Amino acid sequence: MSNDTPDVLVLRSDTHGLPAREYADLLDEQLPDHDVRLARTPAEEREYIEHATVVSGVDINESLLERAENLELFAGIAAGYNHLPLDTLREMDVAVTNASGIHAPNIAEQVVGYVLTFSRRLQEGRRRQNRHEWRHYQGHELMGSTVTVVGLGAIGTAVVERLSGFDVETIGIRYTPEKGGPTDEVVGFDREAVHDALARTEYLIVAAPLTETTRGLLASAEFETLPPDAKLINVGRGKIVDTDALVSAIRTNQIDGAALDVTDPEPLPADHPLWDFENVIITPHNAGHSPKHWDRLADIVAGNVTELSETGDTETLTNLV
Amino acid sequence: MSNDTPDVLVLRSDTHGLPAREYADLLDEQLPDHDVRLARTPAEEREYIEHATVVSGVDINESLLERAENLELFAGIAAGYNHLPLDTLREMDVAVTNASGIHAPNIAEQVVGYVLTFSRRLQEGRRRQNRHEWRHYQGHELMGSTVTVVGLGAIGTAVVERLSGFDVETIGIRYTPEKGGPTDEVVGFDREAVHDALARTEYLIVAAPLTETTRGLLASAEFETLPPDAKLINVGRGKIVDTDALVSAIRTNQIDGAALDVTDPEPLPADHPLWDFENVIITPHNAGHSPKHWDRLADIVAGNVTELSETGDTETLTNLV
Repeated sequence: MSNDTPDVLVLRSDTHGLPAREYADLLDEQLPDHDVRLARTPAEEREYIEHATVVSGVDINESLLERAENLELFAGIAAGYNHLPLDTLREMDVAVTNASGIHAPNIAEQVVGYVLTFSRRLQEGRRRQNRHEWRHYQGHELMGSTVTVVGLGAIGTAVVERLSGFDVETIGIRYTPEKGGPTDEVVGFDREAVHDALARTEYLIVAAPLTETTRGLLASAEFETLPPDAKLINVGRGKIVDTDALVSAIRTNQIDGAALDVTDPEPLPADHPLWDFENVIITPHNAGHSPKHWDRLADIVAGNVTELSETGDTETLTNLV
Repeated sequence: MSNDTPDVLVLRSDTHGLPAREYADLLDEQLPDHDVRLARTPAEEREYIEHATVVSGVDINESLLERAENLELFAGIAAGYNHLPLDTLREMDVAVTNASGIHAPNIAEQVVGYVLTFSRRLQEGRRRQNRHEWRHYQGHELMGSTVTVVGLGAIGTAVVERLSGFDVETIGIRYTPEKGGPTDEVVGFDREAVHDALARTEYLIVAAPLTETTRGLLASAEFETLPPDAKLINVGRGKIVDTDALVSAIRTNQIDGAALDVTDPEPLPADHPLWDFENVIITPHNAGHSPKHWDRLADIVAGNVTELSETGDTETLTNLV
């Protein structure tokens, strides 16, 4: 293929502070039979897309798509895909894949990090350290606790795997409880089952996407059911939690703490009360950030490009959305 | 047995902020055939010890021992026992037990909490939270790392168990490598083996007691061998690490961070440089503190008291030192 007609195009979308150049280089290494090109400017995007059969990036706009005469696959570099022009892509018969699953190890590490920060009161340690104060304090203990995970997809499953050595009881909440799961117990999203699980929960981990079922799932009634020593950890989506109800539950000691990598609204405004509670941890939606992001994504996308060029079939690609 | 001659005496030694009264009550519940008494004052200690066959506490001094005419067992409530008058106890033919192992779950939780705090850079998150700053940062990832554990006793083993779900390589360093262990690899304390392990280590966890072998084990040569992304975690004893060499290694980026629950000197003086490094975590020797301390200790001691009164034999007691 000539140098002017790359068939695999990487859009100029750096992500997580990682340059897209690294991603393009990894794809290039893995795809010696293809012409992989990074479009560094809008003009290069417009030029290269005309011949590309595969495009990879955060997003693609309609004006670029109008020029995409040979496009067969758009390989998204994020887990989410609702921001894409899915109708147009469908009309053009372009397959869409996402990055689902590649963030599971690091998100699960962050979740267990939050859990242990609470169980061993590591933030109290930090406060004493800031004061140069060597003075004992009692910690809690995770062992024997009940951990409930909302969502048993790649992330929820990775969390449960990482908890396997800690001697905890686990409950999973998922759409299809009949499928079972990695937790000791699996229940569905019906209100009675959810509340029965919450009443027994010390660590409540939200690792679900935002859907009509999960939107506002945790509101004042749920915080009332949770025991006062319960901690909420949200790495799913901010709108799964009713923020006002959470603030109220924190203010009144209805729960013992929260760690939020996602918030509603997001970004969290500088004057929001959640920032300053001693028992609330805020991280800026970066649990999904991993130094291995491009490596794991390139493995999936290069595999798909190879399969597509061998079979011409998009039906069997990995991570289709 | 009359009310004036308790046979099981609990000295007035609260520990970890937990009142000794709770411990005495737990022993009393488990030992209905014995007269368990808490000595609340020095006078009560002197009075009750005359008839006691079992005494439990942090320490026992020589003047109390002189009055202990019936003593068969001193049940220490800490893991350490070098502070006890061991020679006198031996001469008096008093068996000594300790609390070894009962702190393993909580110490191991704290160790993995430190590991994940480093791997996901949770302290950087806290600093941004303190500034109300919602801005992405890249985390590291634990998966695929090599974790080396110095000491494969109850604590080291509990750490390795808890890491089982994280997909890491583990190396154990112990006195008797021929015994094997729970880690992927087990080596001894000879200098060559230690340095070979350190050269491959991202997380170095010290969970060993202080002995002539471990004293000063980690000094400038060892920090030189460790890779620059290595993190040191010490929950063993402060003197296993050469503090000046550690400060120098931190100052010059020879290693990436340290989490110290034990220090040398201890307590860490208020003007010590270790307090203020951004990448050093200090906790005041309380990884061993657990709300379950008395429960787990009472189980061991009550079992020993029962066995001793049934067999009259101290040789087969649990946790003999």
